[in-house]
Amino acid sequence: MKKKIKKINAAILIIGNEILSGRTQDKNVQFISNWLNSKCGIVVDEVRIIPDDEKIIVRNILHLSKKFNYVFTTGGIGPTHDDITSQSISRAFKIRYEYHKEAYAILEKYYGKKKFNDGRKKMAKLPKGAKLIYNPSSAAPGFIIKNVLSFPGVPSILNSMIENSKKYLIKGQKIYSKTLNLYTVESNISKKLGLIQKKYNKFVSIGSYPFFRLGKIGVSIVARSNSISKLKNVNKDLIKLVKFKKIQILKI
Amino acid sequence: MKKKIKKINAAILIIGNEILSGRTQDKNVQFISNWLNSKCGIVVDEVRIIPDDEKIIVRNILHLSKKFNYVFTTGGIGPTHDDITSQSISRAFKIRYEYHKEAYAILEKYYGKKKFNDGRKKMAKLPKGAKLIYNPSSAAPGFIIKNVLSFPGVPSILNSMIENSKKYLIKGQKIYSKTLNLYTVESNISKKLGLIQKKYNKFVSIGSYPFFRLGKIGVSIVARSNSISKLKNVNKDLIKLVKFKKIQILKI
Repeated sequence: MKKKIKKINAAILIIGNEILSGRTQDKNVQFISNWLNSKCGIVVDEVRIIPDDEKIIVRNILHLSKKFNYVFTTGGIGPTHDDITSQSISRAFKIRYEYHKEAYAILEKYYGKKKFNDGRKKMAKLPKGAKLIYNPSSAAPGFIIKNVLSFPGVPSILNSMIENSKKYLIKGQKIYSKTLNLYTVESNISKKLGLIQKKYNKFVSIGSYPFFRLGKIGVSIVARSNSISKLKNVNKDLIKLVKFKKIQILKI
Repeated sequence: MKKKIKKINAAILIIGNEILSGRTQDKNVQFISNWLNSKCGIVVDEVRIIPDDEKIIVRNILHLSKKFNYVFTTGGIGPTHDDITSQSISRAFKIRYEYHKEAYAILEKYYGKKKFNDGRKKMAKLPKGAKLIYNPSSAAPGFIIKNVLSFPGVPSILNSMIENSKKYLIKGQKIYSKTLNLYTVESNISKKLGLIQKKYNKFVSIGSYPFFRLGKIGVSIVARSNSISKLKNVNKDLIKLVKFKKIQILKI
């Protein structure tokens, strides 16, 4: 009897002209994806990068929140005119966009009453009913509303607060991975590798990635599965292939 | 009279489980976007990262190729089982997936007849009628079919061949940008910055990005436009704001 696998998935929505224009290198996709995988057993199935444009944000929030268990947004929750994520999510869900009592109190305390100006107050405006994701770096909280979780775009701040979102997430089955680094070229093993993938079908996904290291070219074979035993079987088959082809394994 | 602006846009479709899973940091979005901006006046308006899954690739190719002037795909054109970009694009456009005479000849010459095995031959199979994007690094060409351009995922190879795609692209108006790095915090300038953005409306897009440097926090104000004169006017207004607030400008 097949064991029923509970797959929980997520999309990441990167909101920001600076990423699209190439000015800024995104680092949040890799961080969030690794964290969701390793800490929550949640798989990222799609990423989108879109501009700071309300209509586009609304359309993407509605689409992705229906299609995936969770949507993680980054960017657009600061104090300036181009920070429109919170209001756009409110509009998408037709929820009032208003001062969040607790967020307001946190920010007022952080800045002091005198320095709590309009820009800073803006960061306390959230979709009504949102729950806060606390920010130990710079006070301004992220939030979750329905299945959408919103974080700032600055990687160091996002990284410092992501653990505070864990309590809101349903955990899925952990995904394990096993990597073999081989001194060979892809086309030397592609046929047999394809057969091994076919054998394990949907239970293990096998990827093949060329690398260049110390002047040599090689291939990383990455197998991923929620079943450790299936992963071990794949590894046995890969080792057989490697021995048959007399390929050197690179130890790291 | 308003000058008619020819905007040419593109989407980037990153195909690869290794990027979604967080195993690999994507570097192609920033590179392609900067290249398109600076060399072709083409603006990237959306990026998607999706898994190596034929149905999903087909759906995204159809959607993005209708919506944008160009679609740039990266990944999935190598010799292994998980390289399914070419066949998926063929399926999306209902075009035969077959050996491309010139690509076949290039690869056969590169590897030599004896070493030209099935995996390597696979890289010569393309949508019928595709035109080649030559690859000076590792021979296996990229291609363009309709408005979709396909490149390999390995950044160094992609970077070496992107110039060879230029002849297929209609150029748009160049986008200019001007950056001011200020030693201040966003909320100190957010209100006036919003007014400046409103004044120039859709002609100039102004972004505000916090940074941390030499132990100080600051904000980069980035204005982007295809009109140099409008950009100069924005800059004058920004300098006025900076002087009024007595903010130090960081020279780089």
